[in-house]
Amino acid sequence: MEGLARLIRYFILVSTTNAGSGHPTSSLSAVELMTSLFFARFARRDGFFRPSYDRLIFSKGHASPLFYSLWAAAGAISEKEILTLRRFGSRLEGHPSMAFPFTEVPTGSLGQGLSTGVGMALNAKYLDKLDYNTFVLLGDSEMAEGSVWEAIQIASFYKLNNLIGILDVNRLGQSRETMYGYDVGAFEKRISSFGWNTTLVDGHNFSQIGQAYQAALGNKNQLADGPTMIIAKTIKGKGVKFWEDKAGWHGRPLPREELEKALNELGPFDKKIRGKIMPAPKINPLGSDTNQPPRLIGASYSPGEMVATRKAYGNALVRIYPKYPNMVVLDGEVSNSTYSEIFAKAYPGRYFEMFIAEQNMVGVALGLSARGKMPFVSSFACFLERAFDQIRMAQYANCNIKFCGSHAGVSIGEDGPSQMGLEDIAMFRTILGSVVLYPCDGVSADRLTEEAAKHKGIVYIRTTRKETPVIYSEKDRFPIGGSKTLRSSSKDQVTVIGAGITLHEALEAYELLKKSNIFIRVIDLYSIKPLDLPTLQKTARETKAIIVVEDHHPEGGIFEAVTSALSNENVKIYSLAVRKIPGSGKPDELLDFEEISASAIIKKVRQILK
Amino acid sequence: MEGLARLIRYFILVSTTNAGSGHPTSSLSAVELMTSLFFARFARRDGFFRPSYDRLIFSKGHASPLFYSLWAAAGAISEKEILTLRRFGSRLEGHPSMAFPFTEVPTGSLGQGLSTGVGMALNAKYLDKLDYNTFVLLGDSEMAEGSVWEAIQIASFYKLNNLIGILDVNRLGQSRETMYGYDVGAFEKRISSFGWNTTLVDGHNFSQIGQAYQAALGNKNQLADGPTMIIAKTIKGKGVKFWEDKAGWHGRPLPREELEKALNELGPFDKKIRGKIMPAPKINPLGSDTNQPPRLIGASYSPGEMVATRKAYGNALVRIYPKYPNMVVLDGEVSNSTYSEIFAKAYPGRYFEMFIAEQNMVGVALGLSARGKMPFVSSFACFLERAFDQIRMAQYANCNIKFCGSHAGVSIGEDGPSQMGLEDIAMFRTILGSVVLYPCDGVSADRLTEEAAKHKGIVYIRTTRKETPVIYSEKDRFPIGGSKTLRSSSKDQVTVIGAGITLHEALEAYELLKKSNIFIRVIDLYSIKPLDLPTLQKTARETKAIIVVEDHHPEGGIFEAVTSALSNENVKIYSLAVRKIPGSGKPDELLDFEEISASAIIKKVRQILK
Repeated sequence: MEGLARLIRYFILVSTTNAGSGHPTSSLSAVELMTSLFFARFARRDGFFRPSYDRLIFSKGHASPLFYSLWAAAGAISEKEILTLRRFGSRLEGHPSMAFPFTEVPTGSLGQGLSTGVGMALNAKYLDKLDYNTFVLLGDSEMAEGSVWEAIQIASFYKLNNLIGILDVNRLGQSRETMYGYDVGAFEKRISSFGWNTTLVDGHNFSQIGQAYQAALGNKNQLADGPTMIIAKTIKGKGVKFWEDKAGWHGRPLPREELEKALNELGPFDKKIRGKIMPAPKINPLGSDTNQPPRLIGASYSPGEMVATRKAYGNALVRIYPKYPNMVVLDGEVSNSTYSEIFAKAYPGRYFEMFIAEQNMVGVALGLSARGKMPFVSSFACFLERAFDQIRMAQYANCNIKFCGSHAGVSIGEDGPSQMGLEDIAMFRTILGSVVLYPCDGVSADRLTEEAAKHKGIVYIRTTRKETPVIYSEKDRFPIGGSKTLRSSSKDQVTVIGAGITLHEALEAYELLKKSNIFIRVIDLYSIKPLDLPTLQKTARETKAIIVVEDHHPEGGIFEAVTSALSNENVKIYSLAVRKIPGSGKPDELLDFEEISASAIIKKVRQILK
Repeated sequence: MEGLARLIRYFILVSTTNAGSGHPTSSLSAVELMTSLFFARFARRDGFFRPSYDRLIFSKGHASPLFYSLWAAAGAISEKEILTLRRFGSRLEGHPSMAFPFTEVPTGSLGQGLSTGVGMALNAKYLDKLDYNTFVLLGDSEMAEGSVWEAIQIASFYKLNNLIGILDVNRLGQSRETMYGYDVGAFEKRISSFGWNTTLVDGHNFSQIGQAYQAALGNKNQLADGPTMIIAKTIKGKGVKFWEDKAGWHGRPLPREELEKALNELGPFDKKIRGKIMPAPKINPLGSDTNQPPRLIGASYSPGEMVATRKAYGNALVRIYPKYPNMVVLDGEVSNSTYSEIFAKAYPGRYFEMFIAEQNMVGVALGLSARGKMPFVSSFACFLERAFDQIRMAQYANCNIKFCGSHAGVSIGEDGPSQMGLEDIAMFRTILGSVVLYPCDGVSADRLTEEAAKHKGIVYIRTTRKETPVIYSEKDRFPIGGSKTLRSSSKDQVTVIGAGITLHEALEAYELLKKSNIFIRVIDLYSIKPLDLPTLQKTARETKAIIVVEDHHPEGGIFEAVTSALSNENVKIYSLAVRKIPGSGKPDELLDFEEISASAIIKKVRQILK
């Protein structure tokens, strides 16, 4: 073990010095903690993969040089390749990314790894019923992040005795000492107060570390309650004398001239103890959720029936589950508002209450997705904004997560602005490769929920609080990237584009304008990303102007999606959107106040035609 | 007190039943807790304001019926007005908003109030040196939010013995029991483990409650360490028999037919004990930060000098502080990357380390702003996305907060995507009334930081990691809503709009194209919101096409800002933006890979002119 540790320190030092950047000191503090774990659970000394199916997450992603060096020591990375660290095109990026096949999920935004671990442990204990363990390496600085404490609470609530955290207390953050310094007792007191088992170890003492892992795993075998946190006192920069426990060296590699001196300090090691390439853990079983899909019958809503799209979403989850048995539903303790409770009641074993902790909820979804599940994550649209950074990281994880934000826009009414999602479309549109869907009635909500399930990747479904009349029929289809032209004639002068609640305002405006012999084209832009470009281009050429009306702020919303898509067309486009701070009131009063109602549309059309 | 409590319950019941919605059961559980505090610290029984300058925050904002009823009982709201609850145009919104003069900060997104309280308590203890106390009413459901635990850690770190939390443990959340139910011991164990004083009380027993407040305040007078949490076991729906401790009544008022029966249950009360209108707390002193502003000399950077805009931001904070003595600087433990450390070293008393807890950092900034300070909040641009929901709530708070996001875009290089802000412009643009600034060199970064300070409201400054050459001179001015046309001639065929790092790519493209006698107009769009519309319209008419090049995702960024502003102009607009998942590499390699470099601009210009 000591020999391996020296070899791994060697790889950490040469790779970072060669890169000219990186985080060697944060890597060196955890060498013994990870070497002991890695060669006991993930690889054998002879380099062949140990099929324990255990998962390992580096929540302190900046310790990637250690992560790569472990795999190098095991033989999965050549000595030549480790020198490509941080180079353009290398699999070995500054923080672990999916480019490297042994990365479970991308990390680097601190405080997210434990939530992902909770997702993987939930999957093992309650879904796949596999006995793998999930290990998460945490830094002491990231313990300031609330999302870590969200994960600590939920892990304890679900008694995840298959989850083992390793807290690397090296005292020093990026710019200063952490809040707790070397007070490992403070960490033990806080973490154990949440019902976790805790063990204090010297993070550079192999025998203490080994015993701690054995105890944690033993605890599991006894099916004792609760997860375990191994709290290790370590030395930042351990192994390089003039670095040890010194501030000011975070994220700084050794200058070349210092390297040789440091390598001599390491003491002797034998490169021949490296193993050979092993198969990637990616081939591990992902549970048995791949039955023959049955054919589904679409939920039936009759034209004119009043139904809230949020309720149709809940019904759709239940309807499609038999065809998508890898579905899991998470909610932030508002399931009776988002209507994910309909699914929770139908399939309680596939629903996990995440309580009011949205950041952890999204991290858990990422962990479930990494283990082959398809999470549907719901809360109020505005509260999903709480987890923007987790959603941002998910875009790099090649994941398969569906988000549903209910209570979108001012049309929620009396509850007021604190409950209104008015920035959510902008947030989800800016995620690479995302799909953004916005149903206006029960039928489209039902079909779009299934389209979301069909599509692999990040999909956002925006639902509405109030009931809206069903306007579509059983036969209608709603492909991603499509739209519905609902009113159209050769006499159309202006196009009005709506979605969700505003689509109904557009239809009302159509009827009223028709009375004065003014004809508008009405398009339901249910797919906000990707857009139905041919239809938009066609209407740009066939009508004088386009009005986009949306229950959202103008920036990053439907108007900007349309103007950017038509930036090469010669057409005037006007925006009706939420531009004033809304208050409480009846939905119609607020739609009028924000000038996104039928009367506002009519006024705008008349202005344009004047 | 009992009489007042009955009167307050009366107001809660009649106002919510009359509104037909609202959260009476969540209000009733905290009646004794708030009545005792309110009439001891905020109002006298005769209704006149008690000038203790204490602050009161309803973190559980859905208990607004209680909040308003307290003020009604004190005489600040007439019985007629309390019946306007949740009506359009009423000051009494579904959740406390700034429309009501006694609201400190808007609440309703759970888990944010304690952070705001930390900001107010920090202000009292370390800035204004005033002896007011800050009281925060918390619900038990919101304890699942990590941001609460961020606040708990920071409050303890700064020994805020002038901060008193009141935790209303009524057991029931919106859709189910909380994680802890009535296990008040679990809350006590967890909260005290973070160094807080804790007291358990029966939340409906006035004498226990009164003693707890006395103890908490006494603790303060002895200047004992640490804040206090009063943990109260309460009954949701208390006072209405068939509601008490029953699930399924969250957010539901009494039907009219039940109201009279419930009012009889309340027992007798005398409306005459109501007080008279009192002066609003808004007139309280906001500290003494209003010296005569001295004239400032602009920081001098010489043309061609290489300086990172993030460093110029740090220098600017120090330069302008004498003129803006209400400035406070907060950072998420990356001050040596954002360079707010330059200010921290110059004015340590005006800098607060917020550690890696961005949600709490923004909540603290809101509290400081509410007490008359002007916080400058900095972290990596991508990590500010962690606090989107707090930033969203700030837009309703009539606040004065400046945000600085460093390490924007792929140009940060080797650290890889987890550290790259590629959605931050979209996030800040979608905030109502926000200003978004993006300097490209040292001079503009210095001037725009001062412009941000001059402007009251939410301002975002986006800075760059790598050094860029100074292109502006001492004399240049950078008004918000302006732009700089840097290359222009009668022969311009295409306009290239850049900002920050891409502006330098545009200038390089200009030089190379000039060699082949192709002239482009180059505009520095340093003010992304608001935009310089006249200049954009002028160039739209004078050149064939516009290319917008940005180190950001295309959605919600500079391209969409420009296309939406020019949606009525007949001009073709093209986007060069980050469309592929970036990796590690040298800044120039990544700019080329994403096709936002000089060579990509040249290629696009040639395509357009073909």
